[in-house]
Amino acid sequence: MSFTENKKTPKASATQERIYQTALKLFCKKGFEQSSMREISKQANVALGATYYYFKSKDAIVMEFYAQTQKEIFIKVQSTLKEKQDLKTRIKALVLAEFENKKPYRNLVGALARIGSDPQHPLSPFSPHTEAIRSRSLEICRSIIEDTKTPLPKDLKTYLPQLLWFYHLGMLFFWIHDQSDNQERSHRLLEESLEIMMRLLKLAKLPMMAKFRKSTVKMLEDFLSDTFFK
Amino acid sequence: MSFTENKKTPKASATQERIYQTALKLFCKKGFEQSSMREISKQANVALGATYYYFKSKDAIVMEFYAQTQKEIFIKVQSTLKEKQDLKTRIKALVLAEFENKKPYRNLVGALARIGSDPQHPLSPFSPHTEAIRSRSLEICRSIIEDTKTPLPKDLKTYLPQLLWFYHLGMLFFWIHDQSDNQERSHRLLEESLEIMMRLLKLAKLPMMAKFRKSTVKMLEDFLSDTFFK
Repeated sequence: MSFTENKKTPKASATQERIYQTALKLFCKKGFEQSSMREISKQANVALGATYYYFKSKDAIVMEFYAQTQKEIFIKVQSTLKEKQDLKTRIKALVLAEFENKKPYRNLVGALARIGSDPQHPLSPFSPHTEAIRSRSLEICRSIIEDTKTPLPKDLKTYLPQLLWFYHLGMLFFWIHDQSDNQERSHRLLEESLEIMMRLLKLAKLPMMAKFRKSTVKMLEDFLSDTFFK
Repeated sequence: MSFTENKKTPKASATQERIYQTALKLFCKKGFEQSSMREISKQANVALGATYYYFKSKDAIVMEFYAQTQKEIFIKVQSTLKEKQDLKTRIKALVLAEFENKKPYRNLVGALARIGSDPQHPLSPFSPHTEAIRSRSLEICRSIIEDTKTPLPKDLKTYLPQLLWFYHLGMLFFWIHDQSDNQERSHRLLEESLEIMMRLLKLAKLPMMAKFRKSTVKMLEDFLSDTFFK
Protein backbone atom coordinates (compact mmCIF):
# COMPACT_ATOMS: atom_id res chain seq x y z
CA MET A 1 0.00 0.00 0.00
CA SER A 2 1.35 3.38 -0.93
CA PHE A 3 -1.59 5.68 -1.65
CA THR A 4 -0.56 9.23 -2.08
CA GLU A 5 -2.82 10.59 0.60
CA ASN A 6 -1.94 8.93 3.87
CA LYS A 7 -3.38 9.43 7.36
CA LYS A 8 -6.62 7.67 6.58
CA THR A 9 -8.64 5.63 9.07
CA PRO A 10 -8.15 1.87 8.68
CA LYS A 11 -11.69 1.60 7.30
CA ALA A 12 -11.08 4.29 4.70
CA SER A 13 -7.83 2.63 3.66
CA ALA A 14 -9.61 -0.69 3.28
CA THR A 15 -12.28 0.92 1.10
CA GLN A 16 -9.67 2.61 -1.06
CA GLU A 17 -7.75 -0.63 -1.43
CA ARG A 18 -10.96 -2.47 -2.39
CA ILE A 19 -11.78 0.11 -5.08
CA TYR A 20 -8.21 -0.09 -6.37
CA GLN A 21 -8.11 -3.90 -6.56
CA THR A 22 -11.58 -4.08 -8.10
CA ALA A 23 -10.61 -1.53 -10.74
CA LEU A 24 -7.43 -3.42 -11.70
CA LYS A 25 -9.40 -6.66 -12.06
CA LEU A 26 -12.01 -4.93 -14.19
CA PHE A 27 -9.40 -3.19 -16.37
CA CYS A 28 -7.72 -6.55 -17.06
CA LYS A 29 -10.95 -8.43 -17.69
CA LYS A 30 -13.03 -5.91 -19.60
CA GLY A 31 -10.38 -3.55 -20.96
CA PHE A 32 -9.22 -0.21 -19.58
CA GLU A 33 -11.11 1.95 -22.06
CA GLN A 34 -14.27 -0.14 -21.78
CA SER A 35 -14.46 0.16 -17.96
CA SER A 36 -16.22 3.03 -16.20
CA MET A 37 -15.98 4.54 -12.72
CA ARG A 38 -19.65 3.62 -12.30
CA GLU A 39 -18.91 -0.04 -12.92
CA ILE A 40 -15.89 0.02 -10.62
CA SER A 41 -17.96 1.51 -7.78
CA LYS A 42 -20.72 -1.04 -8.35
CA GLN A 43 -18.40 -4.03 -8.35
CA ALA A 44 -16.48 -2.72 -5.33
CA ASN A 45 -19.79 -2.17 -3.57
CA VAL A 46 -18.89 1.46 -2.81
CA ALA A 47 -21.09 4.49 -3.55
CA LEU A 48 -20.10 6.33 -6.74
CA GLY A 49 -19.46 9.55 -4.81
CA ALA A 50 -17.15 7.75 -2.41
CA THR A 51 -15.34 6.11 -5.32
CA TYR A 52 -14.68 9.55 -6.81
CA TYR A 53 -13.55 10.76 -3.38
CA TYR A 54 -10.72 8.22 -3.38
CA PHE A 55 -9.88 8.34 -7.07
CA LYS A 56 -10.94 11.27 -9.15
CA SER A 57 -10.70 9.28 -12.41
CA LYS A 58 -9.61 6.00 -13.98
CA ASP A 59 -6.34 7.75 -14.79
CA ALA A 60 -5.80 8.36 -11.05
CA ILE A 61 -6.17 4.62 -10.44
CA VAL A 62 -3.56 3.94 -13.11
CA MET A 63 -1.22 6.50 -11.55
CA GLU A 64 -1.59 4.59 -8.28
CA PHE A 65 -0.86 1.37 -10.17
CA TYR A 66 2.32 2.94 -11.56
CA ALA A 67 3.37 4.09 -8.08
CA GLN A 68 2.66 0.78 -6.36
CA THR A 69 4.27 -1.50 -8.95
CA GLN A 70 7.27 0.82 -9.03
CA LYS A 71 7.63 0.54 -5.25
CA GLU A 72 7.54 -3.26 -5.44
CA ILE A 73 10.11 -3.29 -8.22
CA PHE A 74 12.34 -0.90 -6.28
CA ILE A 75 12.35 -3.26 -3.26
CA LYS A 76 13.17 -6.29 -5.41
CA VAL A 77 15.97 -4.51 -7.26
CA GLN A 78 17.44 -3.08 -4.04
CA SER A 79 17.93 -6.56 -2.61
CA THR A 80 19.87 -7.59 -5.74
CA LEU A 81 21.96 -4.41 -5.69
CA LYS A 82 23.18 -5.19 -2.16
CA GLU A 83 24.46 -8.59 -3.23
CA LYS A 84 25.51 -8.18 -6.85
CA GLN A 85 27.94 -5.65 -8.30
CA ASP A 86 27.97 -6.97 -11.86
CA LEU A 87 26.08 -4.67 -14.27
CA LYS A 88 24.50 -7.38 -16.38
CA THR A 89 23.09 -9.16 -13.32
CA ARG A 90 21.71 -5.90 -12.00
CA ILE A 91 20.00 -4.85 -15.23
CA LYS A 92 18.59 -8.33 -15.60
CA ALA A 93 17.15 -8.10 -12.10
CA LEU A 94 15.37 -4.86 -13.00
CA VAL A 95 13.83 -6.18 -16.23
CA LEU A 96 12.84 -9.52 -14.69
CA ALA A 97 11.23 -7.68 -11.76
CA GLU A 98 9.21 -5.70 -14.32
CA PHE A 99 8.11 -8.85 -16.15
CA GLU A 100 7.15 -10.65 -12.94
CA ASN A 101 5.47 -7.69 -11.36
CA LYS A 102 3.38 -6.82 -14.42
CA LYS A 103 2.47 -10.41 -15.30
CA PRO A 104 -0.95 -10.44 -13.57
CA TYR A 105 -1.81 -7.22 -15.41
CA ARG A 106 -0.64 -7.97 -18.95
CA ASN A 107 -3.96 -6.85 -20.50
CA LEU A 108 -3.96 -3.58 -18.63
CA VAL A 109 -0.30 -2.90 -19.37
CA GLY A 110 -1.02 -3.62 -23.05
CA ALA A 111 -3.80 -1.02 -23.08
CA LEU A 112 -1.50 1.46 -21.34
CA ALA A 113 1.23 0.85 -23.90
CA ARG A 114 -1.18 1.70 -26.71
CA ILE A 115 -2.37 4.84 -24.93
CA GLY A 116 1.13 5.76 -23.79
CA SER A 117 2.63 5.61 -27.28
CA ASP A 118 1.30 9.18 -27.53
CA PRO A 119 3.77 11.18 -25.40
CA GLN A 120 1.10 13.84 -24.82
CA HIS A 121 -1.28 11.42 -23.11
CA PRO A 122 -1.25 11.93 -19.30
CA LEU A 123 -0.59 8.21 -18.73
CA SER A 124 2.31 8.03 -21.18
CA PRO A 125 5.72 7.30 -19.60
CA PHE A 126 6.95 10.34 -21.55
CA SER A 127 4.27 12.84 -20.47
CA PRO A 128 4.71 15.74 -18.01
CA HIS A 129 2.02 14.10 -15.80
CA THR A 130 4.16 11.04 -15.12
CA GLU A 131 7.24 13.11 -14.30
CA ALA A 132 7.33 11.97 -10.64
CA ILE A 133 7.06 8.28 -11.57
CA ARG A 134 9.67 8.73 -14.28
CA SER A 135 12.17 10.40 -11.99
CA ARG A 136 11.84 7.63 -9.39
CA SER A 137 12.35 5.08 -12.18
CA LEU A 138 15.46 6.98 -13.19
CA GLU A 139 16.67 6.84 -9.58
CA ILE A 140 16.45 3.04 -9.69
CA CYS A 141 18.41 3.09 -12.95
CA ARG A 142 21.01 5.40 -11.40
CA SER A 143 21.47 3.15 -8.39
CA ILE A 144 22.07 0.21 -10.74
CA ILE A 145 24.78 2.07 -12.67
CA GLU A 146 26.43 4.14 -9.95
CA ASP A 147 28.38 1.64 -7.88
CA THR A 148 28.57 -1.32 -10.22
CA LYS A 149 31.95 -3.08 -10.31
CA THR A 150 31.68 -3.44 -14.08
CA PRO A 151 34.19 -0.93 -15.53
CA LEU A 152 32.47 1.71 -17.63
CA PRO A 153 33.73 4.53 -19.86
CA LYS A 154 33.37 7.72 -17.80
CA ASP A 155 31.94 9.96 -20.51
CA LEU A 156 29.18 7.48 -21.33
CA LYS A 157 28.45 6.56 -17.72
CA THR A 158 26.58 9.83 -17.09
CA TYR A 159 24.00 8.86 -19.69
CA LEU A 160 23.67 5.18 -18.91
CA PRO A 161 20.84 5.56 -16.36
CA GLN A 162 18.65 7.26 -18.97
CA LEU A 163 19.62 4.75 -21.64
CA LEU A 164 18.78 1.97 -19.20
CA TRP A 165 15.39 3.57 -18.62
CA PHE A 166 14.66 3.49 -22.37
CA TYR A 167 15.99 -0.05 -22.64
CA HIS A 168 13.74 -1.35 -19.86
CA LEU A 169 10.71 0.32 -21.47
CA GLY A 170 11.61 -1.26 -24.80
CA MET A 171 11.93 -4.69 -23.18
CA LEU A 172 8.57 -4.21 -21.48
CA PHE A 173 7.01 -3.23 -24.81
CA PHE A 174 8.35 -6.37 -26.46
CA TRP A 175 7.15 -8.49 -23.52
CA ILE A 176 3.61 -7.04 -23.69
CA HIS A 177 3.25 -8.23 -27.27
CA ASP A 178 5.17 -11.47 -26.85
CA GLN A 179 2.82 -14.36 -27.67
CA SER A 180 5.35 -17.14 -26.93
CA ASP A 181 4.83 -19.53 -23.98
CA ASN A 182 5.66 -17.77 -20.73
CA GLN A 183 7.12 -14.98 -22.83
CA GLU A 184 10.26 -17.04 -23.37
CA ARG A 185 11.18 -14.92 -26.42
CA SER A 186 11.35 -11.85 -24.18
CA HIS A 187 13.66 -13.68 -21.80
CA ARG A 188 15.86 -14.69 -24.72
CA LEU A 189 15.90 -11.17 -26.13
CA LEU A 190 16.84 -9.85 -22.69
CA GLU A 191 19.74 -12.28 -22.40
CA GLU A 192 21.04 -11.72 -25.94
CA SER A 193 20.67 -7.95 -25.96
CA LEU A 194 22.42 -7.66 -22.60
CA GLU A 195 25.26 -9.77 -23.94
CA ILE A 196 25.70 -7.37 -26.87
CA MET A 197 25.42 -4.32 -24.64
CA MET A 198 28.10 -5.61 -22.25
CA ARG A 199 30.46 -6.36 -25.13
CA LEU A 200 29.92 -2.92 -26.60
CA LEU A 201 30.52 -1.22 -23.23
CA LYS A 202 33.73 -3.18 -22.82
CA LEU A 203 34.92 -2.21 -26.30
CA ALA A 204 33.83 1.40 -25.82
CA LYS A 205 36.59 1.91 -23.25
CA LEU A 206 39.32 1.36 -25.83
CA PRO A 207 41.16 4.50 -27.03
CA MET A 208 40.31 3.72 -30.65
CA MET A 209 36.64 4.08 -29.76
CA ALA A 210 37.09 7.68 -28.62
CA LYS A 211 35.39 9.19 -31.68
CA PHE A 212 32.52 6.78 -31.45
CA ARG A 213 32.06 7.68 -27.77
CA LYS A 214 32.29 11.37 -28.59
CA SER A 215 29.50 11.30 -31.21
CA THR A 216 27.39 9.14 -28.94
CA VAL A 217 27.82 11.49 -25.98
CA LYS A 218 26.97 14.44 -28.24
CA MET A 219 23.71 12.85 -29.29
CA LEU A 220 22.79 11.74 -25.78
CA GLU A 221 23.52 15.20 -24.42
CA ASP A 222 21.28 16.66 -27.05
CA PHE A 223 18.37 14.25 -26.76
CA LEU A 224 18.26 12.64 -23.35
CA SER A 225 16.63 15.44 -21.48
CA ASP A 226 13.68 14.88 -19.19
CA THR A 227 11.48 16.29 -21.91
CA PHE A 228 12.52 13.78 -24.51
CA PHE A 229 9.66 14.70 -26.81
CA LYS A 230 9.38 18.44 -27.01
CA MET B 1 -2.52 7.17 -58.43
CA SER B 2 -1.94 3.51 -57.67
CA PHE B 3 -5.26 2.03 -56.61
CA THR B 4 -5.12 -1.70 -56.31
CA GLU B 5 -7.98 -2.34 -58.71
CA ASN B 6 -7.05 -0.90 -62.08
CA LYS B 7 -8.95 -0.96 -65.37
CA LYS B 8 -11.55 1.53 -64.22
CA THR B 9 -13.26 4.06 -66.46
CA PRO B 10 -11.77 7.57 -66.17
CA LYS B 11 -14.94 8.69 -64.37
CA ALA B 12 -14.74 5.86 -61.84
CA SER B 13 -11.06 6.63 -61.21
CA ALA B 14 -11.87 10.28 -60.64
CA THR B 15 -14.60 9.35 -58.15
CA GLN B 16 -12.30 7.00 -56.29
CA GLU B 17 -9.58 9.65 -56.18
CA ARG B 18 -12.07 12.22 -54.88
CA ILE B 19 -13.22 9.88 -52.08
CA TYR B 20 -9.60 9.15 -51.21
CA GLN B 21 -8.49 12.80 -51.09
CA THR B 22 -11.61 13.85 -49.16
CA ALA B 23 -11.03 11.08 -46.63
CA LEU B 24 -7.39 12.07 -46.05
CA LYS B 25 -8.40 15.69 -45.51
CA LEU B 26 -11.11 14.68 -43.07
CA PHE B 27 -8.81 12.28 -41.18
CA CYS B 28 -6.26 15.08 -40.74
CA LYS B 29 -8.80 17.72 -39.77
CA LYS B 30 -11.23 15.79 -37.61
CA GLY B 31 -9.15 12.81 -36.52
CA PHE B 32 -9.05 9.30 -37.99
CA GLU B 33 -11.14 7.66 -35.29
CA GLN B 34 -13.65 10.50 -35.23
CA SER B 35 -14.35 10.32 -38.98
CA SER B 36 -16.99 8.04 -40.50
CA MET B 37 -17.53 6.56 -43.96
CA ARG B 38 -20.87 8.40 -43.99
CA GLU B 39 -19.15 11.73 -43.50
CA ILE B 40 -16.52 10.94 -46.13
CA SER B 41 -19.21 10.08 -48.69
CA LYS B 42 -21.14 13.25 -47.85
CA GLN B 43 -18.13 15.54 -48.15
CA ALA B 44 -16.97 13.84 -51.35
CA ASN B 45 -20.50 14.18 -52.72
CA VAL B 46 -20.66 10.47 -53.52
CA ALA B 47 -23.48 8.09 -52.49
CA LEU B 48 -22.64 6.00 -49.41
CA GLY B 49 -23.08 2.76 -51.36
CA ALA B 50 -20.66 3.95 -54.04
CA THR B 51 -18.17 5.01 -51.36
CA TYR B 52 -18.25 1.48 -49.93
CA TYR B 53 -17.87 0.11 -53.45
CA TYR B 54 -14.51 1.83 -53.81
CA PHE B 55 -13.30 1.41 -50.22
CA LYS B 56 -14.85 -1.18 -48.00
CA SER B 57 -13.73 0.63 -44.81
CA LYS B 58 -11.66 3.48 -43.40
CA ASP B 59 -8.88 0.92 -42.96
CA ALA B 60 -8.95 0.27 -46.73
CA ILE B 61 -8.40 3.99 -47.33
CA VAL B 62 -5.41 3.93 -44.99
CA MET B 63 -3.99 0.88 -46.77
CA GLU B 64 -4.25 2.87 -50.01
CA PHE B 65 -2.49 5.77 -48.26
CA TYR B 66 0.32 3.40 -47.21
CA ALA B 67 0.63 2.07 -50.77
CA GLN B 68 0.61 5.48 -52.44
CA THR B 69 3.04 7.22 -50.10
CA GLN B 70 5.33 4.20 -50.33
CA LYS B 71 5.32 4.42 -54.11
CA GLU B 72 6.22 8.11 -53.97
CA ILE B 73 9.02 7.44 -51.49
CA PHE B 74 10.33 4.60 -53.63
CA ILE B 75 10.59 6.91 -56.67
CA LYS B 76 12.42 9.59 -54.66
CA VAL B 77 14.86 7.13 -53.13
CA GLN B 78 15.54 5.41 -56.46
CA SER B 79 16.74 8.66 -57.98
CA THR B 80 19.22 9.13 -55.12
CA LEU B 81 20.41 5.52 -55.37
CA LYS B 82 21.38 5.99 -59.01
CA GLU B 83 23.60 8.95 -58.15
CA LYS B 84 24.91 8.23 -54.66
CA GLN B 85 26.75 5.16 -53.45
CA ASP B 86 27.53 6.36 -49.94
CA LEU B 87 25.41 4.58 -47.30
CA LYS B 88 24.82 7.59 -45.07
CA THR B 89 23.57 9.71 -47.98
CA ARG B 90 21.26 6.92 -49.08
CA ILE B 91 19.72 6.31 -45.66
CA LYS B 92 19.30 10.03 -45.18
CA ALA B 93 17.46 10.22 -48.51
CA LEU B 94 15.02 7.54 -47.35
CA VAL B 95 14.25 9.17 -44.00
CA LEU B 96 13.98 12.67 -45.47
CA ALA B 97 11.63 11.35 -48.16
CA GLU B 98 9.46 9.91 -45.36
CA PHE B 99 9.44 13.22 -43.48
CA GLU B 100 8.62 15.26 -46.59
CA ASN B 101 6.06 12.85 -47.91
CA LYS B 102 4.17 12.50 -44.63
CA LYS B 103 4.32 16.20 -43.70
CA PRO B 104 0.85 17.15 -45.04
CA TYR B 105 -0.60 14.21 -43.06
CA ARG B 106 1.09 14.59 -39.67
CA ASN B 107 -2.18 14.33 -37.75
CA LEU B 108 -3.24 11.21 -39.55
CA VAL B 109 0.19 9.60 -39.23
CA GLY B 110 0.09 10.43 -35.50
CA ALA B 111 -3.24 8.63 -35.11
CA LEU B 112 -1.89 5.67 -37.08
CA ALA B 113 1.20 5.52 -34.85
CA ARG B 114 -1.03 5.26 -31.78
CA ILE B 115 -3.18 2.56 -33.35
CA GLY B 116 -0.19 0.80 -34.87
CA SER B 117 1.69 0.50 -31.59
CA ASP B 118 -0.47 -2.60 -31.12
CA PRO B 119 1.15 -5.13 -33.49
CA GLN B 120 -2.15 -7.04 -33.74
CA HIS B 121 -4.00 -4.06 -35.20
CA PRO B 122 -4.56 -4.49 -38.98
CA LEU B 123 -3.04 -1.06 -39.67
CA SER B 124 0.08 -1.66 -37.58
CA PRO B 125 3.35 -1.80 -39.55
CA PHE B 126 3.97 -5.09 -37.71
CA SER B 127 0.65 -6.80 -38.44
CA PRO B 128 0.03 -9.69 -40.88
CA HIS B 129 -2.37 -7.39 -42.80
CA THR B 130 0.39 -4.97 -43.76
CA GLU B 131 2.74 -7.74 -44.90
CA ALA B 132 2.69 -6.62 -48.56
CA ILE B 133 3.49 -2.99 -47.66
CA ARG B 134 6.19 -4.13 -45.25
CA SER B 135 7.91 -6.35 -47.78
CA ARG B 136 8.00 -3.56 -50.36
CA SER B 137 9.48 -1.26 -47.70
CA LEU B 138 12.08 -3.92 -47.02
CA GLU B 139 12.87 -4.04 -50.72
CA ILE B 140 13.64 -0.32 -50.66
CA CYS B 141 15.90 -0.93 -47.64
CA ARG B 142 17.62 -3.80 -49.42
CA SER B 143 18.29 -1.69 -52.51
CA ILE B 144 19.89 0.95 -50.28
CA ILE B 145 22.23 -1.57 -48.65
CA GLU B 146 22.98 -3.96 -51.51
CA ASP B 147 25.26 -2.02 -53.82
CA THR B 148 26.46 0.77 -51.55
CA LYS B 149 30.15 1.59 -51.89
CA THR B 150 30.44 1.97 -48.10
CA PRO B 151 32.35 -1.12 -46.92
CA LEU B 152 30.26 -3.27 -44.59
CA PRO B 153 31.01 -6.36 -42.48
CA LYS B 154 29.61 -9.32 -44.44
CA ASP B 155 27.96 -11.15 -41.55
CA LEU B 156 26.04 -8.07 -40.45
CA LYS B 157 25.17 -6.93 -43.97
CA THR B 158 22.47 -9.61 -44.34
CA TYR B 159 20.52 -8.04 -41.49
CA LEU B 160 21.07 -4.39 -42.27
CA PRO B 161 17.96 -4.00 -44.49
CA GLN B 162 15.71 -5.10 -41.62
CA LEU B 163 17.60 -2.97 -39.12
CA LEU B 164 17.23 -0.03 -41.47
CA TRP B 165 13.50 -0.69 -41.65
CA PHE B 166 13.25 -0.48 -37.85
CA TYR B 167 15.46 2.59 -37.78
CA HIS B 168 13.32 4.47 -40.30
CA LEU B 169 10.17 3.61 -38.33
CA GLY B 170 11.82 4.86 -35.15
CA MET B 171 12.82 8.12 -36.84
CA LEU B 172 9.28 8.53 -38.14
CA PHE B 173 7.90 7.95 -34.64
CA PHE B 174 10.19 10.62 -33.21
CA TRP B 175 9.25 13.01 -36.03
CA ILE B 176 5.51 12.51 -35.44
CA HIS B 177 5.87 13.72 -31.85
CA ASP B 178 8.49 16.36 -32.55
CA GLN B 179 7.08 19.75 -31.53
CA SER B 180 10.14 21.79 -32.57
CA ASP B 181 9.93 24.28 -35.47
CA ASN B 182 9.90 22.42 -38.78
CA GLN B 183 10.81 19.30 -36.79
CA GLU B 184 14.40 20.48 -36.65
CA ARG B 185 15.10 18.15 -33.69
CA SER B 186 14.21 15.17 -35.89
CA HIS B 187 16.62 16.38 -38.55
CA ARG B 188 19.35 16.75 -35.92
CA LEU B 189 18.63 13.31 -34.46
CA LEU B 190 18.80 11.84 -37.96
CA GLU B 191 22.19 13.45 -38.61
CA GLU B 192 23.68 12.53 -35.24
CA SER B 193 22.36 8.98 -35.11
CA LEU B 194 23.59 8.30 -38.66
CA GLU B 195 27.01 9.60 -37.69
CA ILE B 196 27.14 7.10 -34.79
CA MET B 197 25.85 4.26 -36.92
CA MET B 198 28.47 4.87 -39.61
CA ARG B 199 31.26 4.95 -37.03
CA LEU B 200 30.03 1.72 -35.46
CA LEU B 201 29.77 -0.03 -38.83
CA LYS B 202 33.32 1.06 -39.64
CA LEU B 203 34.60 -0.24 -36.31
CA ALA B 204 32.58 -3.45 -36.61
CA LYS B 205 34.79 -4.61 -39.49
CA LEU B 206 37.86 -4.82 -37.23
CA PRO B 207 38.94 -8.35 -36.20
CA MET B 208 38.76 -7.42 -32.51
CA MET B 209 35.03 -6.82 -32.97
CA ALA B 210 34.40 -10.40 -34.10
CA LYS B 211 32.75 -11.46 -30.84
CA PHE B 212 30.56 -8.38 -30.80
CA ARG B 213 29.48 -9.09 -34.38
CA LYS B 214 28.85 -12.73 -33.53
CA SER B 215 26.49 -11.98 -30.62
CA THR B 216 24.76 -9.31 -32.67
CA VAL B 217 24.23 -11.65 -35.61
CA LYS B 218 22.91 -14.32 -33.23
CA MET B 219 20.31 -11.96 -31.84
CA LEU B 220 19.33 -10.61 -35.23
CA GLU B 221 18.98 -14.12 -36.63
CA ASP B 222 16.74 -14.99 -33.73
CA PHE B 223 14.54 -11.90 -33.74
CA LEU B 224 14.48 -10.27 -37.15
CA SER B 225 11.98 -12.55 -38.78
CA ASP B 226 9.04 -11.20 -40.74
CA THR B 227 6.85 -12.03 -37.76
CA PHE B 228 8.80 -9.91 -35.34
CA PHE B 229 6.08 -10.07 -32.73
CA LYS B 230 4.85 -13.64 -32.43
